[in-house]
Amino acid sequence: MMHIIRRERFSAAHKLCRENWTEEENLSVFGPCSHPNWHGHNYELFITVKGDIDPETGFVINLKDLSKIVKHKIIDKVDHRNLNLDVDFLEGKVTTSENIAVAMWEEIEADISAFGCSLHCVKLVETENNMVEYYGK
Amino acid sequence: MMHIIRRERFSAAHKLCRENWTEEENLSVFGPCSHPNWHGHNYELFITVKGDIDPETGFVINLKDLSKIVKHKIIDKVDHRNLNLDVDFLEGKVTTSENIAVAMWEEIEADISAFGCSLHCVKLVETENNMVEYYGK
Amino acid sequence: MMHIIRRERFSAAHKLCRENWTEEENLSVFGPCSHPNWHGHNYELFITVKGDIDPETGFVINLKDLSKIVKHKIIDKVDHRNLNLDVDFLEGKVTTSENIAVAMWEEIEADISAFGCSLHCVKLVETENNMVEYYGK
Amino acid sequence: MMHIIRRERFSAAHKLCRENWTEEENLSVFGPCSHPNWHGHNYELFITVKGDIDPETGFVINLKDLSKIVKHKIIDKVDHRNLNLDVDFLEGKVTTSENIAVAMWEEIEADISAFGCSLHCVKLVETENNMVEYYGK
Amino acid sequence: MMHIIRRERFSAAHKLCRENWTEEENLSVFGPCSHPNWHGHNYELFITVKGDIDPETGFVINLKDLSKIVKHKIIDKVDHRNLNLDVDFLEGKVTTSENIAVAMWEEIEADISAFGCSLHCVKLVETENNMVEYYGK
Amino acid sequence: MMHIIRRERFSAAHKLCRENWTEEENLSVFGPCSHPNWHGHNYELFITVKGDIDPETGFVINLKDLSKIVKHKIIDKVDHRNLNLDVDFLEGKVTTSENIAVAMWEEIEADISAFGCSLHCVKLVETENNMVEYYGK
Repeated sequence: MMHIIRRERFSAAHKLCRENWTEEENLSVFGPCSHPNWHGHNYELFITVKGDIDPETGFVINLKDLSKIVKHKIIDKVDHRNLNLDVDFLEGKVTTSENIAVAMWEEIEADISAFGCSLHCVKLVETENNMVEYYGK
Repeated sequence: MMHIIRRERFSAAHKLCRENWTEEENLSVFGPCSHPNWHGHNYELFITVKGDIDPETGFVINLKDLSKIVKHKIIDKVDHRNLNLDVDFLEGKVTTSENIAVAMWEEIEADISAFGCSLHCVKLVETENNMVEYYGK
Repeated sequence: MMHIIRRERFSAAHKLCRENWTEEENLSVFGPCSHPNWHGHNYELFITVKGDIDPETGFVINLKDLSKIVKHKIIDKVDHRNLNLDVDFLEGKVTTSENIAVAMWEEIEADISAFGCSLHCVKLVETENNMVEYYGK
Repeated sequence: MMHIIRRERFSAAHKLCRENWTEEENLSVFGPCSHPNWHGHNYELFITVKGDIDPETGFVINLKDLSKIVKHKIIDKVDHRNLNLDVDFLEGKVTTSENIAVAMWEEIEADISAFGCSLHCVKLVETENNMVEYYGK
Repeated sequence: MMHIIRRERFSAAHKLCRENWTEEENLSVFGPCSHPNWHGHNYELFITVKGDIDPETGFVINLKDLSKIVKHKIIDKVDHRNLNLDVDFLEGKVTTSENIAVAMWEEIEADISAFGCSLHCVKLVETENNMVEYYGK
Repeated sequence: MMHIIRRERFSAAHKLCRENWTEEENLSVFGPCSHPNWHGHNYELFITVKGDIDPETGFVINLKDLSKIVKHKIIDKVDHRNLNLDVDFLEGKVTTSENIAVAMWEEIEADISAFGCSLHCVKLVETENNMVEYYGK
């Protein structure tokens, strides 16, 4: 089974908080990530697609096509934006890396399947010490 | 399935040798890693935990809790220490990355399960060229 | 001349804008960095101190002391904060990397001199592609 | 299950093209990767081997042996070479990362099995943004 | 003095050889870098510009402008190209990192001065182990 | 002025302590770095040489020659060794990065001058957060 991986990057603001909790409750669960005035990250996103190699081109998927999907459906919406306020596919969600990764999976899964291969993993690196990987349901 | 990964680091001395072997035997199997006066590494440790996302917090496990387990059960015992001489959970073991990874898995597995998720992988990076991954039995 | 360098990291939100400019003017000069709802970065900060080596300790400055200054005077104020709203030493400034680096230099220069050595460089890495270095006036 | 990973590096020239296609056809599928006069990369290769830990040595496989296989069967043939012109195991193939990874797998699989463990993954990193992983048929 | 640094990347083929030398002479001086069928690298380029901070914008130079110069004058000419065959500003030169760095300096120096600041350093990273820095005459 | 930089790596054990101090005095100054049973690091060493470009070869110094000096005079003596016990050029010294960098400078300066260029900087990276640079007296 061949996997191909594309890295993209974006810089965004966010905070972790539930609006139905008090500031103290948010602080006790989310720590400094709940500070009201936002903080932010340089996120790294690794999208893994798996499939068979096309015998003519030697590609699982043309990286040009994969990159276009990821840029159009994800990066254009999150880069230099506020994940809590500006992103349609994150509306109403606590913007933990876990929730972001699931939402990004759902944004691009169908588009990738349309190329005859399948989305295998969405890896989101929030800092050099903290990251998540989502492999679908 | 959601995976969350925490990186921690430690600097330690070690050597590879079996006490019931001669220095020549150790040298022939372990090479320069067997030098009697020790050498050392900046180890990187990546702990992967898998589980369901808590719908309230958006967390698989609060990284504060995961980090506390890893620091208390592992890092505090190995950082700025000698892996062959100072570490209870490595006693009597050849301190290859393979053996260290298994021992670290056993140190933290129960503590992580107590949070309702499960340890998925212990990755130990000894140098930029050499690393191991352990996924349990 | 011996230089010693300490890396610290912080995650913060910011935007580039002048309040006396319209949104259009800000966008034309600062591009997506001016988006009103903030974005953010994982900043890396490299503080270089130069001085003579103490013949007893072998140190230019004890990294414990250097790290304490940088954490107390800088990191505690900017990490998981909004650089435009929350940071006393950035008040009234456009939060370009250039302006941040100068302001951080001024925050710590005297404290470092008090240890008998001198601040040589403040390097601030905003993304893997963009960074600044300030060497004082 | 224990996995051990060895990183090796090589610098090589290549281009993506099918000889039975016109230059325009190649350009439309392969983009700038098809430029006739070649381009090149610093490739990173991560070879993962899985197996049981030898209770005497603490090794899955001695990295000295693994490294020798990879250097002799792969690196010596590709480093500072042209992947399209100089490499026996890539003859007649479009030198996409996918095809290279499969061919490298086939070069070393038997040699690794001879040590009582098995090849698990060939990961080839072409640039910091583009990489593939092959896990066998 | 404020320095601002922009990283750009390109992938290119090259070889080290003098046409007036025999293949043996080239091999004895340039080693495997002289192999006739080319090899290649993922080059990293760090351009440092120094100048005063504009009090209105907080910029030494707008990175949008700096990046445009570097892309137009350098990257567009070298990325996915052969440094020995395709690049006007390297014609007739042995494509060592030293020579490339000097030639790139000359390509962009005037354009940067036109923005009221000055080119300080061209750093070219050929591999993770080999790199050069040029500070002008 | 052209600078060429070569990275080398070594893994070594050490501790920070003065033999004429008590264990408590060492602990209070050197912290966990003074633990009696040693710890260790993957050190990275960046050697910068400056000089004119040879118009025939395009080299400041052939990296083959520079690498040979650094390996023979430094790496062979420190890699997989104990910096406090095994290294002639560190005898009697507290093995801080500062002291190591100065000693390494003295080991190789003459050999590099013999090639008609001059040693410019010895940079020693002890961990990803701590490093020193020495530019000579």
